Amino acid sequence: MGESGGKRWNFGANEVVEQSCSQNVRYFLNLLADNLDGNDGRAVIPLGHGDPSPFPSFRTDPAAVEAVCHALRSAQFNHYSTTSGLPLARKFMFLFNAAYALLVPKGNTLNRLIGLAVAEYLSRDLSYQICPNDVHLTAGCHHAIDVLISTLAVPGANILLPRPTYPMYDSRATFSKLEIRRYDLLPDNGWEVDLDAVEALADDKTVALLLINPCNPCGNVFSRQHLQKIAETASKLGVLVIADEVYMKMAFGEKPFVSMAEFAEIVPVMLLGAISKRWSVPGWRFGWMVTLDPHSFMKDSGLVHSLANVLNMSTDPTTFIQGAIPDILGKTKEDFFSSKLETLRECAETCYEEMKKIPCITCPYKPEGSMFTMVKIEFGHLEDIKDDLEFCCKLAKEESLIILPGRAVGLRNWLRITFAVELELLVDGLSRLNNFAQRHSKKHP
Amino acid sequence: MGESGGKRWNFGANEVVEQSCSQNVRYFLNLLADNLDGNDGRAVIPLGHGDPSPFPSFRTDPAAVEAVCHALRSAQFNHYSTTSGLPLARKFMFLFNAAYALLVPKGNTLNRLIGLAVAEYLSRDLSYQICPNDVHLTAGCHHAIDVLISTLAVPGANILLPRPTYPMYDSRATFSKLEIRRYDLLPDNGWEVDLDAVEALADDKTVALLLINPCNPCGNVFSRQHLQKIAETASKLGVLVIADEVYMKMAFGEKPFVSMAEFAEIVPVMLLGAISKRWSVPGWRFGWMVTLDPHSFMKDSGLVHSLANVLNMSTDPTTFIQGAIPDILGKTKEDFFSSKLETLRECAETCYEEMKKIPCITCPYKPEGSMFTMVKIEFGHLEDIKDDLEFCCKLAKEESLIILPGRAVGLRNWLRITFAVELELLVDGLSRLNNFAQRHSKKHP
Repeated sequence: MGESGGKRWNFGANEVVEQSCSQNVRYFLNLLADNLDGNDGRAVIPLGHGDPSPFPSFRTDPAAVEAVCHALRSAQFNHYSTTSGLPLARKFMFLFNAAYALLVPKGNTLNRLIGLAVAEYLSRDLSYQICPNDVHLTAGCHHAIDVLISTLAVPGANILLPRPTYPMYDSRATFSKLEIRRYDLLPDNGWEVDLDAVEALADDKTVALLLINPCNPCGNVFSRQHLQKIAETASKLGVLVIADEVYMKMAFGEKPFVSMAEFAEIVPVMLLGAISKRWSVPGWRFGWMVTLDPHSFMKDSGLVHSLANVLNMSTDPTTFIQGAIPDILGKTKEDFFSSKLETLRECAETCYEEMKKIPCITCPYKPEGSMFTMVKIEFGHLEDIKDDLEFCCKLAKEESLIILPGRAVGLRNWLRITFAVELELLVDGLSRLNNFAQRHSKKHP
Repeated sequence: MGESGGKRWNFGANEVVEQSCSQNVRYFLNLLADNLDGNDGRAVIPLGHGDPSPFPSFRTDPAAVEAVCHALRSAQFNHYSTTSGLPLARKFMFLFNAAYALLVPKGNTLNRLIGLAVAEYLSRDLSYQICPNDVHLTAGCHHAIDVLISTLAVPGANILLPRPTYPMYDSRATFSKLEIRRYDLLPDNGWEVDLDAVEALADDKTVALLLINPCNPCGNVFSRQHLQKIAETASKLGVLVIADEVYMKMAFGEKPFVSMAEFAEIVPVMLLGAISKRWSVPGWRFGWMVTLDPHSFMKDSGLVHSLANVLNMSTDPTTFIQGAIPDILGKTKEDFFSSKLETLRECAETCYEEMKKIPCITCPYKPEGSMFTMVKIEFGHLEDIKDDLEFCCKLAKEESLIILPGRAVGLRNWLRITFAVELELLVDGLSRLNNFAQRHSKKHP
């Protein structure tokens, strides 16, 4: 395919890959980085991307760090994750287990111990106990999305994705040739799902509906009543619900977090999650995919078997991090979570209040979960900016401030703002945004 | 697709997945595990799978463990791998870097530092320096295979895979609908590549040829002369060479290890590797994919761009392990490697000598690299066993000994034996194999 240096080669670009990456957060962040003014002495303020882990106020729990060090130093967790024996066996038993372990399928021994820890963690506030065998471990939530989407992508199938969305699902679906159909999240209804649109979009080739709760990018938390309606609609349509709860329990507003797991009796639920956000360690790459399937619909249809097979062909989470998971999930103190939540609440509050002062920007809904809010650009107030991308490029250049253009999450002429950064940095960033807005406002609106 | 519990659901099994996993090492190991006799008090001996990390003689370097603990405790490596700043920055710089870092594409900052460490490590015994920008980090070699194969799999393309092989390539190619064409490794020529077959198999849709050196499953090491012939043949055919060197430098026989990287002037080389085998830490999930492309054939054809995009959609190696990589690759003492190599040599020697004593089994070539050897079953000597699978199932049942049937690596009626286990366990295992063979031999051959 490639013709190069006068010599012909058969390999070349992969067009599907190129399409898949056209709507990638990283793609836009890199584009904005190219617009930064190297002569601006000020620190770049990153409100475009949700990774607060480098900031002191969001530092992870030292106990979690020590749990990983302990597992690593035990020398019991260097092997392939899927070939593990019991963690703390003695010499003979150790050999025996290490040996036996080389024969056990994914989901057994170590994976089963970790699966148990994850199941207990997820079941804590549930009305029932999740079965460890339904827990599949992944190298973070990205990996779970990769495995799940490529398994669901059978010929002719389609999937219902929200608008706005977390675009990794779009990239993966496009890459796997899974047709994407978009339903709207309604800003004037607290970003609830447009259920009429969902019913109109679905057909007998629709395999799943994605819901991200707490919501990235909108920052809302879905109510129990609305979750039930979504479950009932999905059940009627014969589609499973992919419940991306990577921001599980990161709700700091009026509405409590309710897991879609509560509605597994109504509809099969594929629950995705990770320690990345709640423990502020996205770089540790540990997540899960849980099949909530009380009536064995996913099992009997063969979907669970296919999922397990794709996981068997795939990478695994780092083994010694798995070894630390029972301690991390089981022993992290509540005040670690509550103080992080308090910090998020303060950041979200500040973000919302400061936003009100800024001309040309409206925030339809006060963030109550996740790390993001979506705000609308009112171009009627702006002098010389035509769209969200130009807005963000000029903002990067003039203010060394990075904010994600809405198009990156499927909503043109909006912005996705991350408030999960050090508070002083957030305040500085929002005042830069205000200066920028003033400077570009129409003089006589 | 699924009809279940009287209710119709649209989701179901993925047929391509099911085909992809039919030839999976893990599949056969699980099958053998089901044949184990629970009443046998003896330890199960695992000669079916290459993961010596649980065994005392193959324990990893304590310095590598401490390097990871140090990186983890530094709190500088909890973030997304692709959003990293300089590792040890101070407060303001720290914020600045953390901030700026959120904007840098994969391959920059942290990734560039690690890329530099990997490039220096790989260049040590090379006749030229590898460029850090050509290094792509992966979550172990499995992940590199996943990313590479799915990128190469454009419509109509095919790939040349060896027989016998490491079947993960087959699974991934089938999953990505990349046509597989098999060339033979010739047991009577020291498992060299059948180059005539390669030329006959290739056409203008052939994108790549895979070579695993040191060889899994054959245990041979390819000579410099033969590597050059392979490179010249691939160049003539217009295909790139995938050089899986995950067993890099693990050569303990007459032939020295030579990297395919030496022939990148002749043919574009995609070099795959990991710390998994040489440091005996497969559970750490850190590997790489290096594009050796001095004439920019892979770059100009768009392949490198597509690869980078698939990596962008994919998971990353654990960030704090990356943080430890410069120390692990740069400071591990030579005597750690040499003592491990000495242990492997002793195990391989023992394996080869013991094998000679066993009726019905012939080993065409003395292993000189990797952790495996392929041996042939002579059914003429056997009473009541018809093929390799029955051989291995009965062996598991009667002797609690696990050996991989050749069909798992594409060669029926052969066996793949791992000699990388504790020596006492290996000796015990081979005597069990001998007993088994005696017991099933024809009384009057």
